[in-house]
Amino acid sequence: MSSSPSVITCKAAVAWGAGQPLVIEEVEVSPPQPQEIRVKVIATSLCGSDIAAWESQSLFPRIFGHEAAGIVESMGEGVTEFKEGDHVLTLFIGECQRCRHCTSNKSNMCRALGLERSGVMHSDRKTRFSIKGNPVYHYCAVSSFSEYTVVHSGCAAKVSPKAPLEKICILSCGVATVFGLGTVGLSVVQGAKIRGASRVIGVDINPEKGEKAKDFGVDMYLNPKDYDEPIHEVIKRITDGGADYSFECAGDTRATTTALQSCCDGWGLTVTLGVPKAKPEITAHYGLLLTGRTLRGSLFGGWRPKSDIPSLVDKYLNKEIRVDEFVTHNLQLEDINKAFELMREGKCLRCVLHMPK
Amino acid sequence: MSSSPSVITCKAAVAWGAGQPLVIEEVEVSPPQPQEIRVKVIATSLCGSDIAAWESQSLFPRIFGHEAAGIVESMGEGVTEFKEGDHVLTLFIGECQRCRHCTSNKSNMCRALGLERSGVMHSDRKTRFSIKGNPVYHYCAVSSFSEYTVVHSGCAAKVSPKAPLEKICILSCGVATVFGLGTVGLSVVQGAKIRGASRVIGVDINPEKGEKAKDFGVDMYLNPKDYDEPIHEVIKRITDGGADYSFECAGDTRATTTALQSCCDGWGLTVTLGVPKAKPEITAHYGLLLTGRTLRGSLFGGWRPKSDIPSLVDKYLNKEIRVDEFVTHNLQLEDINKAFELMREGKCLRCVLHMPK
Repeated sequence: MSSSPSVITCKAAVAWGAGQPLVIEEVEVSPPQPQEIRVKVIATSLCGSDIAAWESQSLFPRIFGHEAAGIVESMGEGVTEFKEGDHVLTLFIGECQRCRHCTSNKSNMCRALGLERSGVMHSDRKTRFSIKGNPVYHYCAVSSFSEYTVVHSGCAAKVSPKAPLEKICILSCGVATVFGLGTVGLSVVQGAKIRGASRVIGVDINPEKGEKAKDFGVDMYLNPKDYDEPIHEVIKRITDGGADYSFECAGDTRATTTALQSCCDGWGLTVTLGVPKAKPEITAHYGLLLTGRTLRGSLFGGWRPKSDIPSLVDKYLNKEIRVDEFVTHNLQLEDINKAFELMREGKCLRCVLHMPK
Repeated sequence: MSSSPSVITCKAAVAWGAGQPLVIEEVEVSPPQPQEIRVKVIATSLCGSDIAAWESQSLFPRIFGHEAAGIVESMGEGVTEFKEGDHVLTLFIGECQRCRHCTSNKSNMCRALGLERSGVMHSDRKTRFSIKGNPVYHYCAVSSFSEYTVVHSGCAAKVSPKAPLEKICILSCGVATVFGLGTVGLSVVQGAKIRGASRVIGVDINPEKGEKAKDFGVDMYLNPKDYDEPIHEVIKRITDGGADYSFECAGDTRATTTALQSCCDGWGLTVTLGVPKAKPEITAHYGLLLTGRTLRGSLFGGWRPKSDIPSLVDKYLNKEIRVDEFVTHNLQLEDINKAFELMREGKCLRCVLHMPK
């Protein structure tokens, strides 16, 4: 071990209350604790679930952000996997590589480093951020809207230093689902096309999104506002009984119900991926299930974050998957409120925030 | 074709209103129409979904019953598969063997002969029963609480004449799920044991059922009334995080939610099998799904009724599956209200009704 790292003071975008504009503040970032690393964030992108949490949760002050790429600045006790200068993606669900889930090959729901909703670090239930000594809460134990952050070493994946950090940051959540299921409808579309879907129907009440989606492979775009009858009836008619698969990527549990109604009996599979801002309960008539439909959810597309993400970066470098096209905006950290607006209004796909040079 | 069959007048148990005692009436049974057969019912058993429909639906007068075994009495035009005297099980979901579902190998949800909820026959939307010329509605296009009934030839499976009809009648719904999933919790238990489940936990608020279930392979019985905390918390503790599989066989959508809460994240699978009497909407917090649980339903255990049921009868004859143990009561048709009471009070497994000799 070299000499212990000390507290860093840097800039971060701090949320002080639900839905209130973020404020760029000077924050103190503690040294990494045992098994943790401190990361200099190079680029971080904004995801719909940051917005949902910012609008609906009550734990403040808080630093949001959970999709990020950066460089290891220092390591806590016991960390052997990383060294200073390593390029990493942060992971909002980690991998301890030891628990029942990590050692199964059926799950990416690590017991030790799963989704942390309490605004603190997994290990000691404390924060690594403060302002003048007062704690500032984390988001998903990542909190990347800061020049420096501390994450558990199980919540970071080392990636090729050849990959541009300002592009691959979005792989740490948004597009990590290209081959299967995802948090972003267009990633699902891309995944569905790669997996050989014969026809992809995209549904959105925003016609601009509908047009954009055609570039990503949507064969037919439907706007529910254009129809008098429920959209699932339209879909059932078009598909002769319902789609084989349907994906809810809207962050709205009512859309999950519609997605289930839109898929066919016998074998229809509905996957819910969005994080709703309101009404967390999904409702579904039992008959939809009894007649052979399946409802499933997926977080991070089922990818094992630490094990699988580096290879996704390699696929990107080999041009096997498209990533650049998802980044529609690049802004500086100080313009983060503009990024929140773009996302909230549905005017961007991914907006990447760059840290001050 | 021989000379056309004529109307038969026989006894049937007719329901005149929701929850009202059934009345044994003289009914007229029409000749079978094209592609239909008329069956002399030998034995029929009572299922929880008969009770649910009788208590909650509004279409009357009606003849319930959908689990039956009988002998072909006559055939309608175009029927080549059956002849007079064939032993058959009736099927509440049929198989046309031609539609997209029947020709897939993923579904038992026949498009043409699926679950018929309207109280009429699939083909002409009319009834085959009447009392003094006034129509009496069907149930699931089977209506076996009658000495004679008419079913579509796609809704009957020819079975070995060696098998005792008064036992195998229950295979036409209740126990047809022994190797997988089922409408009856004990069938699921038997199936789970056959498939190698290491531990089966049975949950019921009726302690008598709990004791009985141990005979069928339940390793641990839990009565929610014995605990102050929610039963899914108990199950999660006992199973170190939740069961791998959970099955709702209670006919209660609240139990489906509990079943989903009781299974583990990552790969937990909940199967809902019951037909609820009230509250048809299942509700589930989206987070249960997002963290890797799957909710699925099954009707008739996914068996292809016409294709698979005869082999189940053979397995019973070969003593590969237990069936006799499910028949706890034998009654005459005229005692049908007693059977309804036994089922409603949870005092029987399967009660078989025998037709007058």
